[in-house]
Amino acid sequence: MSLVVQKYGGSSLANPDLIRNVARRVASAHDRSGQVVATVSAMGDLTDDLLKIASQVSDRPDPRELDVLLSTGELQSCALVAMALRSIGKRAVSLSGAQAGIRTDSSYGKAKISGLCPERIEQELKNNNIVIVAGFQGITEKMDITTLGRGASDLTAVALAAALKADRCEIYTDVDGIYTADPRMVPKAQKLDEIGFEEMLELASYGAKMNPRSIELGMVYNVPILVASSFEDLPGTLIHGGADMNIEVGEIRNRVRGIATEKEVAKVTVYSVVDRPGVAASLFEPLANADISVDVIVQNASVSGTTDLTFTVKSSDLDATMDVVRLVSKNLGMEDVGYSTGLAKVSIVGTGMQDSPGYAAKMFAALSEGNINIEMITTSEIRITCLVKEESTADAAKVLHEAFELDKTK
Amino acid sequence: MSLVVQKYGGSSLANPDLIRNVARRVASAHDRSGQVVATVSAMGDLTDDLLKIASQVSDRPDPRELDVLLSTGELQSCALVAMALRSIGKRAVSLSGAQAGIRTDSSYGKAKISGLCPERIEQELKNNNIVIVAGFQGITEKMDITTLGRGASDLTAVALAAALKADRCEIYTDVDGIYTADPRMVPKAQKLDEIGFEEMLELASYGAKMNPRSIELGMVYNVPILVASSFEDLPGTLIHGGADMNIEVGEIRNRVRGIATEKEVAKVTVYSVVDRPGVAASLFEPLANADISVDVIVQNASVSGTTDLTFTVKSSDLDATMDVVRLVSKNLGMEDVGYSTGLAKVSIVGTGMQDSPGYAAKMFAALSEGNINIEMITTSEIRITCLVKEESTADAAKVLHEAFELDKTK
Repeated sequence: MSLVVQKYGGSSLANPDLIRNVARRVASAHDRSGQVVATVSAMGDLTDDLLKIASQVSDRPDPRELDVLLSTGELQSCALVAMALRSIGKRAVSLSGAQAGIRTDSSYGKAKISGLCPERIEQELKNNNIVIVAGFQGITEKMDITTLGRGASDLTAVALAAALKADRCEIYTDVDGIYTADPRMVPKAQKLDEIGFEEMLELASYGAKMNPRSIELGMVYNVPILVASSFEDLPGTLIHGGADMNIEVGEIRNRVRGIATEKEVAKVTVYSVVDRPGVAASLFEPLANADISVDVIVQNASVSGTTDLTFTVKSSDLDATMDVVRLVSKNLGMEDVGYSTGLAKVSIVGTGMQDSPGYAAKMFAALSEGNINIEMITTSEIRITCLVKEESTADAAKVLHEAFELDKTK
Repeated sequence: MSLVVQKYGGSSLANPDLIRNVARRVASAHDRSGQVVATVSAMGDLTDDLLKIASQVSDRPDPRELDVLLSTGELQSCALVAMALRSIGKRAVSLSGAQAGIRTDSSYGKAKISGLCPERIEQELKNNNIVIVAGFQGITEKMDITTLGRGASDLTAVALAAALKADRCEIYTDVDGIYTADPRMVPKAQKLDEIGFEEMLELASYGAKMNPRSIELGMVYNVPILVASSFEDLPGTLIHGGADMNIEVGEIRNRVRGIATEKEVAKVTVYSVVDRPGVAASLFEPLANADISVDVIVQNASVSGTTDLTFTVKSSDLDATMDVVRLVSKNLGMEDVGYSTGLAKVSIVGTGMQDSPGYAAKMFAALSEGNINIEMITTSEIRITCLVKEESTADAAKVLHEAFELDKTK
């Protein structure tokens, strides 16, 4: 007997027929493995509908109350899936985040899981129940309801899998796995059978539609995560921390595993930054306090005692960012500030790129041949990211997919 | 400073505009009294919508899961009202039944309140918060979500008022008070300024649209209950346990206070029941076990050692009732069983009728003059009920309203 934790996304639960479909899938997983815990998202567009009602009763809905409101969507789904399971003869019980023991801090709207007390879940498993847990939510020490932020039902699933020492975690969604690139941009994109945690983390952080925190959690607790479709019976993609089992001895593995793209990026540059300790902090601390997430940061080497500092933010955060930057840079005597918007990040990702030179050069050459101008470059050990004009995103993804022969991925 | 507990029904919360209207009303109650706890029902027809989805995923939705599902409606309302209050500058916090400390037994769908632990509410009041509590729900000792049965948001309000020793409880709904009769049947029906608990309990149990358990609770804990409209600023009806303040010395008060009507009644008769101890119990115990609520019971005096036993049930319970009755009466050797359906109960209610003869005779005469046949009669100390054909209900209410001069009620 093994324990599987599953997660079903909102599009997989959008109507009563789909809910019954999910129940059948949970039931057959139970037949196969003996113990199943499933977390569910809110039905279809319910979360958006609730947000709309909230905006109609209040210009700025109170974060605590918004979390109470939004948490009801997942509660409805888990009750309905448990009902559907019972109606096909399975023992099942639904649990709210609170009942499932998902403790969080009190950052409403983006709470962090601070601990998991899975006694009730373990008790229900012992009673031969399938356990359906409301995703995306938890409870504070003071017993207030919190949500973990949009898309964080994945996180609930991986956290439960880690706490329950599950054999694996399965994320069911409306796509059938992780692709070498976004198939809507790159028609030749290939589905990956497997991918390592680190590579997936870079892909997720740089545009692939998965919650990066859940990948990180899977990596830390070494929980293999399967991403697959809830609509079809296809194998999906296994995200794991082990060695690649698919490579035959002597085979040369494609070292670029995927291309991530992210649109709606804005770039901010502060010119003539005085090159002394603490200047960067005095800029980025107020941004963090204003809850603005700064991404790529590039600072050139100082030549004349001053340097230019460039970083990117989401386009939607640009106004708030400029307010902070203008104020801080004025105080520091650096009044020359510029920004541009309508940009996108295009990244190639692969652990195999470590210690293997030539990938960056090949990437720049391919973009240049495609007449795509590079606005900015940044790298990690297993990723190279270029900032390009937003309208070039799909072209950039296509030429890179071609250049690194990702269409030959298997 | 005084503490008021309010309750707003679903029709008063059916859309964002109405939710903001409720928030304004709660806010002005807070301005007047200093401390407000408000319980709310689910928005408009949401509970029915959720029941419909449940019936689409399961033929017989599991009662525990149905309660989880239905409880989300009130949770949404209380979060939205708290948000709307905050957006007009009031400190407010929403609490689920669980957070509000409403403990129940585990009879899902019709749980009984077993205790109230209002520490959290008291804490929030101390913090100068208006407290919005999800009505209609509670939590078991095992921390499972329950609902108190349809219409039981009233009960939540009165129970909270009792536990918090509130100065009064205000039920806001889509009618502007308690009437001498159903105004849809009797156009001349008058709104009552006040009514005693006992009279209201009889009216509620015999057809007036209020939860009888909440009246009972108000009576036991002596919590005055105001019933009024959430759409208009009218005085409403005060239900209370004190002496009638409106009667001047020497005035002769109309002793019939109201007429209650209830349709969809069926009548069952077991003929030639052997007149020996235990026979009635052997019939009504299995009915109770089958969860069938038996109402009026009439047994004539025995003449020849056998008697006829007649009782009423809701029409919707008739099939189940006859299954039980046929089985039991066969075992007891009393195979002559009859039933009729399409009946209604019409009652006159008033504490003043106690020890004052002549009300029954006047009632029967009035019905007779109206050519309305009486199928069965039953009385309590402060109520006389006649069973009539369903199609005569409105006529019966009208002639009784006229006969007892209820149109002159003030």
